[in-house]
Amino acid sequence: MPAPAGLPGRAALARARLLTAPELDGGLVRELERITGRRAEPLYDAPRSGPKDAPLLCVGSALPEALRTERLLWFHSVNAGTDALLCATPWPAGALLTRTVGRMGERIAQYVLAWVLAECQSVPEFAALHARAQWRRLPSELAAGQTALVYGAGRIGTAVGGLLRGCGLRTVGVARTARSGPAPGFDRVVGADEDAAALGAARWVVSTLPSTAATEGFFGAGRFGAMRGATFVNVGRGATVDLGALEAALRGGGVRGAVLDVLPEEPAAPDDPVWRLPRTVITSHSAGITADEDVVADFTACWEALAAGRRPELAVDLGRGY
Amino acid sequence: MPAPAGLPGRAALARARLLTAPELDGGLVRELERITGRRAEPLYDAPRSGPKDAPLLCVGSALPEALRTERLLWFHSVNAGTDALLCATPWPAGALLTRTVGRMGERIAQYVLAWVLAECQSVPEFAALHARAQWRRLPSELAAGQTALVYGAGRIGTAVGGLLRGCGLRTVGVARTARSGPAPGFDRVVGADEDAAALGAARWVVSTLPSTAATEGFFGAGRFGAMRGATFVNVGRGATVDLGALEAALRGGGVRGAVLDVLPEEPAAPDDPVWRLPRTVITSHSAGITADEDVVADFTACWEALAAGRRPELAVDLGRGY
Repeated sequence: MPAPAGLPGRAALARARLLTAPELDGGLVRELERITGRRAEPLYDAPRSGPKDAPLLCVGSALPEALRTERLLWFHSVNAGTDALLCATPWPAGALLTRTVGRMGERIAQYVLAWVLAECQSVPEFAALHARAQWRRLPSELAAGQTALVYGAGRIGTAVGGLLRGCGLRTVGVARTARSGPAPGFDRVVGADEDAAALGAARWVVSTLPSTAATEGFFGAGRFGAMRGATFVNVGRGATVDLGALEAALRGGGVRGAVLDVLPEEPAAPDDPVWRLPRTVITSHSAGITADEDVVADFTACWEALAAGRRPELAVDLGRGY
Repeated sequence: MPAPAGLPGRAALARARLLTAPELDGGLVRELERITGRRAEPLYDAPRSGPKDAPLLCVGSALPEALRTERLLWFHSVNAGTDALLCATPWPAGALLTRTVGRMGERIAQYVLAWVLAECQSVPEFAALHARAQWRRLPSELAAGQTALVYGAGRIGTAVGGLLRGCGLRTVGVARTARSGPAPGFDRVVGADEDAAALGAARWVVSTLPSTAATEGFFGAGRFGAMRGATFVNVGRGATVDLGALEAALRGGGVRGAVLDVLPEEPAAPDDPVWRLPRTVITSHSAGITADEDVVADFTACWEALAAGRRPELAVDLGRGY
């Protein structure tokens, strides 16, 4: 069976050399060797032996310049975000890029719900009162019945919407274009160009958007200015947010608070003014960690799809960038 | 239609004087006047005028000695816990006691889930890192797949189990006696005398138990000693916990942490050693607040049940104490 256009064929896959990034755990590398039936070589070295024209199958988080050639058959990213791989020099023509999503949807959804409920139940405030041995009742908010607007109606956005909805919130998804009727995880899905009313009605605005040319500065004065007391939670990418516009909306009160897992520049230095945004907490890009078992499971799924001549579901659309 | 034995009859209800506690909000009192069709008098005064033998319908949180007579027809508690009403002098024979549960099940369930996820997602730790402008990834735990053991399979325990289960946790309820098969909110329900194995397997142990003669010191050396790294969350009553046994288990590591909304003695003074229990947070009896709208809704339900000659669902079983 010939592979669909743009996919590595079985013959090329059989000949390919497996290069794995040196930071990968030994147990993970052994699993990749077992799945592909060949020995792994270090990704950052130019292969020293073996056929010089053999195609390359790489697994890691970054791709060195020297390997950005037409010999690259397939790169599997151990992360979900692939913007750093794509934004440097052009991606080698014809090379497949797949990514690890793992239980990331579930993990990010639990992160979002944790911070939503932490605000409703005054978790940080109670921790502070406890540290001062102070007995004081604090008000709580019932999240059930509130509305969450979730940007991104893909795998991760759907997981976030589904978990929030399970907790009694009304969920509205935002996709590039509106959809008719309810969608998985959402009571309804609106288009990104018709979100103003939904921003004004939301108690929570959650972004799962990837970083692409189309999403840079997506959350700017327009969207923050349309919010009426929402808390903004960003588990997507930092470059989607105009921090100056966010600060203005926080100071003006249109944005009630912010939980930022991601920033335009990471890591933030101790003297970065972002730490002093009012009513904001930064969580150091920790929401969507991938475990080694996630990499094994997702690489296996890609491998099996290619062996069957199918396009892997985790293949990155190079035009869209995710 | 005659009322079932032990319930106020319609004739007595029609003649009853409405006494409301002075701490009730004016809007709430007006609602109670509207529902019952009579003027409210202050609960803490002996009625100064009107028929001296009229039966009394009281709404509040405490009942003065002077009103603990056979004239008491019905007392509606604005709280869910009625132990303080029942533990003083004997309850007047024949008087009905009802209580406000409101959306308390939902509120307490959201409180429990908030603290479960706060621990999984290191919410207090991230707040502390943020205060020091420190960028550092912290590990997270996926709550989905973990096991929560919930004591009390009534209205509140069921709400807690249901919400945790919706978030992907396995839920085991503990009732006075085991039940066969799954129950609402729980994958299974075990009896309180066969909970040792379940305590050892649980990541979370949540108590919603009321304070009764049977539950005093219920969580003592035996149950805490059977835990293998569970975090203990108490949203029931403080008297159910032997704090010395909890402290020993926290120091020994069998109990990983504790979230205590309730204490044997409340409020805790600033020098109370309970504030220094390791890995513990105390939240000042805030989990199950009742709002005025909850009191109106639940009083109305009781009123309508009595008008129809039915026993209100919110009537307290004086033998069991809740």
